[in-house]
Amino acid sequence: MRILLVSNYYKEATEAAAHSTVELLKSQGVQVVEVDNGRETVPEQGSFDLLIVFGGDGTILRAARQYAITGVPVLGVNMGTVGFLSNIEVHELEQYLPDLLNQRYRLDQRMMLQVTVHQGEHITHQGCCLNEIVVRSVDHQLNNLSVEIGSDQAGNYRGDGLLVATPTGSTAYSLSCGGPVIDPEVEAMVITPIASQIISRRPMVVGADKVIRVFSADGRPSLIRLDGQSEIPLEPEAVASIRKADHKLNLINLKTTSFFHEIDTRLRRSEGL
Amino acid sequence: MRILLVSNYYKEATEAAAHSTVELLKSQGVQVVEVDNGRETVPEQGSFDLLIVFGGDGTILRAARQYAITGVPVLGVNMGTVGFLSNIEVHELEQYLPDLLNQRYRLDQRMMLQVTVHQGEHITHQGCCLNEIVVRSVDHQLNNLSVEIGSDQAGNYRGDGLLVATPTGSTAYSLSCGGPVIDPEVEAMVITPIASQIISRRPMVVGADKVIRVFSADGRPSLIRLDGQSEIPLEPEAVASIRKADHKLNLINLKTTSFFHEIDTRLRRSEGL
Amino acid sequence: MRILLVSNYYKEATEAAAHSTVELLKSQGVQVVEVDNGRETVPEQGSFDLLIVFGGDGTILRAARQYAITGVPVLGVNMGTVGFLSNIEVHELEQYLPDLLNQRYRLDQRMMLQVTVHQGEHITHQGCCLNEIVVRSVDHQLNNLSVEIGSDQAGNYRGDGLLVATPTGSTAYSLSCGGPVIDPEVEAMVITPIASQIISRRPMVVGADKVIRVFSADGRPSLIRLDGQSEIPLEPEAVASIRKADHKLNLINLKTTSFFHEIDTRLRRSEGL
Amino acid sequence: MRILLVSNYYKEATEAAAHSTVELLKSQGVQVVEVDNGRETVPEQGSFDLLIVFGGDGTILRAARQYAITGVPVLGVNMGTVGFLSNIEVHELEQYLPDLLNQRYRLDQRMMLQVTVHQGEHITHQGCCLNEIVVRSVDHQLNNLSVEIGSDQAGNYRGDGLLVATPTGSTAYSLSCGGPVIDPEVEAMVITPIASQIISRRPMVVGADKVIRVFSADGRPSLIRLDGQSEIPLEPEAVASIRKADHKLNLINLKTTSFFHEIDTRLRRSEGL
Repeated sequence: MRILLVSNYYKEATEAAAHSTVELLKSQGVQVVEVDNGRETVPEQGSFDLLIVFGGDGTILRAARQYAITGVPVLGVNMGTVGFLSNIEVHELEQYLPDLLNQRYRLDQRMMLQVTVHQGEHITHQGCCLNEIVVRSVDHQLNNLSVEIGSDQAGNYRGDGLLVATPTGSTAYSLSCGGPVIDPEVEAMVITPIASQIISRRPMVVGADKVIRVFSADGRPSLIRLDGQSEIPLEPEAVASIRKADHKLNLINLKTTSFFHEIDTRLRRSEGL
Repeated sequence: MRILLVSNYYKEATEAAAHSTVELLKSQGVQVVEVDNGRETVPEQGSFDLLIVFGGDGTILRAARQYAITGVPVLGVNMGTVGFLSNIEVHELEQYLPDLLNQRYRLDQRMMLQVTVHQGEHITHQGCCLNEIVVRSVDHQLNNLSVEIGSDQAGNYRGDGLLVATPTGSTAYSLSCGGPVIDPEVEAMVITPIASQIISRRPMVVGADKVIRVFSADGRPSLIRLDGQSEIPLEPEAVASIRKADHKLNLINLKTTSFFHEIDTRLRRSEGL
Repeated sequence: MRILLVSNYYKEATEAAAHSTVELLKSQGVQVVEVDNGRETVPEQGSFDLLIVFGGDGTILRAARQYAITGVPVLGVNMGTVGFLSNIEVHELEQYLPDLLNQRYRLDQRMMLQVTVHQGEHITHQGCCLNEIVVRSVDHQLNNLSVEIGSDQAGNYRGDGLLVATPTGSTAYSLSCGGPVIDPEVEAMVITPIASQIISRRPMVVGADKVIRVFSADGRPSLIRLDGQSEIPLEPEAVASIRKADHKLNLINLKTTSFFHEIDTRLRRSEGL
Repeated sequence: MRILLVSNYYKEATEAAAHSTVELLKSQGVQVVEVDNGRETVPEQGSFDLLIVFGGDGTILRAARQYAITGVPVLGVNMGTVGFLSNIEVHELEQYLPDLLNQRYRLDQRMMLQVTVHQGEHITHQGCCLNEIVVRSVDHQLNNLSVEIGSDQAGNYRGDGLLVATPTGSTAYSLSCGGPVIDPEVEAMVITPIASQIISRRPMVVGADKVIRVFSADGRPSLIRLDGQSEIPLEPEAVASIRKADHKLNLINLKTTSFFHEIDTRLRRSEGL
């Protein structure tokens, strides 16, 4: 078995944990390749069987955008912060190792989004993400966007912008903006307005097989943000087409935790911070 | 062709419209049976081919609970109020009659809910509805409910109660309580808290193949309301199991209106009242 | 010094605590009169110097409606539940007794509301309360109310109803309905819609010297509830005038707790239940 | 009488209206000085008796920050957009001119805010505004702010940031972020979280005589925005003190419109755009 281990090596605690995990895995006869979170070059598809990510949700989000397309199972190992995406804590890793190596776990398939920006005939940018795609103004000024869902005109969004989230992303930024929690087993996206000037504009849950088209309603440029981590410009004449990505993220669930119980607990725990 | 025509005969305008429609239909060689909205006895299944409902959403909701199980296509004819469920206005009926009689329309299949109340081994009550099932206290006092989704414990709901809505019901009472709009093509229900004391309790979109179990967390009785029209008691020891109904409502869509455009327009129009 | 001690004698723990407090107070040479929470007859004004209330917020709310008009300082003693109105826990009473008897405390003056129901020339009902006045339908049906603020028409409230809360009440039911937290030092009331059908209807903070008039917009009766504890009918032709009460509740603050820190802590603690 | 006329001269329609107004005023024997909205140099205090501002709310906000300190009465003349601050439309100016010149109007005194940024002993920046002061991250990243109200610790704000609004500003950006509408006669500010990660964080109405202190909770810089128009940096070690400004904006109200009726109408009208 070949394992790819992704970590934030600039954080000392994370680096130490990663290194002792590498030793542990090697002692079990596993091949391990270590990759720093920031590194751009990605090992070839098919060249590893398992991905372990050390860190918080940010690290897992970044790894999802890079590696999910390979279809490899991903285990998130939490390093101490509140994380919705990681499944076990770093001190639990040794205990769960036999289950991990013998594939005694549930695989949770999480829907991802892809965005394609067209300008006339040309595709100018593309990207995919796990949580959400935000479209907002470049400079904190009023933003006015037109939205089409499939062939329907769904009206204008005037305010700070809008986001389109997956069920996984529904518990992240979308929730802060007033969106609902969505069961990861529901095949849907949610369009959540951000600080809407139109008060009757509300979060809207849309079937996952639809295409959501977003473009400027007032000739001003906007900014597209993927999982709060990478940016794409949306020029005044361009159109962003947002849809379900072709691939999913295969999240390893060793504890077979249940989503609704987790949400109930974590939401209330996060309040305490 | 045999048509069943349901109307509120106590409203004069509605009665007049219904009667002139009957004449119109008969002149086309159609058999028409008229039923008053309040009447309990329902014609045998298979004994009619089409259901026309005159009135506002309330009348259509009542008809859906009674007739949807027969699978018959239903046309809602609006009598002047804001209606999300009716497809045409009464003055448009003559114009659309050829399309209606020749089945040139889209059939929108709308998910319905069923609730079964168990007390120990016994089923004490059952019911179905199109919009939402509300569970709340009998007497406006604080209500404390436990919720399970599938085999998950989803925590306590403390406040005025909760509701479970279909996508169709997402634009009705659930919206007033802070729930999202849900595309009718999404196979999901939404659990929306009503005036929750726990501020971090948020609307939750749940896969339509799950069973939601609701019961008292403090030994007090509650009241179950179906589409705001009929009531079932929920005794302290009883459990309400809410799930997708086996049958759907077949709504006739003559104008092939699009959901998202309609929502955008109607939400804003309803503000003007 | 003469102290009136109000308690829920049907609760065993409360009764025991009350009795030992009586002994403690008598040993200090204080005259004590005990009153059961439910008792209607109230000792004459001026006949006691201090009011101690054992119990949760419900007991204090009831005592406020009965005794606040006498102007007597009130100490809330919490019996174990989450309480925003009580200042000390029952086990802290002995420790704080010297401060209490020597009046070493801050008096927090809390605004109260009064409602007067007029039918034509006649006053049919009156009442006062500390937290909020709710106006809602009698039977869970749609409620449609007209609101005037001073001489301004403030529009219709269509939905489950509305409430008018004091700053003290802003952290109770109003918060659950989406209202803001209001500093008790602000001279204001908040009108909060309950499950409004009109989505753009929002909580509105109104100067405390204004009169808010509420009446039926559709000829149907409503129900007025004071602090969720007592009820007054609002007939179709009647008008409810809500304003700041002439008297305030003088809450004893032995710990000189600060409101904003308390809110921050308590809101998050209440989530954990 | 000497009138200062502020306008956006880059907009053709506004310029034309301004010029014909100047002619009209001069024909009445009034001295008029014209100032372009963007111009930084301000005529001496006491050198004019009245300020007329042509344009939308943005132009009036800018004029308020510049001229309110002089105490001069300000008339906002709307140029066609939705405006909460302007009192009359441009075509109504001639009709209201006699009232204006003879001071037959109500003066609405609107509270303003001032912010002072301290770094240790030094004041690094100062500013005032009419609507709201926003504190948010520089780069759309997660923002974590500590808030003190008077001497109270009011907890951390984790999310996109927070804003402090006046009653006038309560119908602007604060409303879009979930804040309440506040009667301009209430002496209060509202602290509204922006996309808060802590779901139980709610808008908080604070007495206008309190000082609100905001500073970084995680050592990262933030950005302060005044009325969405001007910016001040908030360095990691700096503290922003926000309080009621010493001066108010004297808004001329020729129509003696009433706030609550206006709000009811305008909120619903703005939905229609």
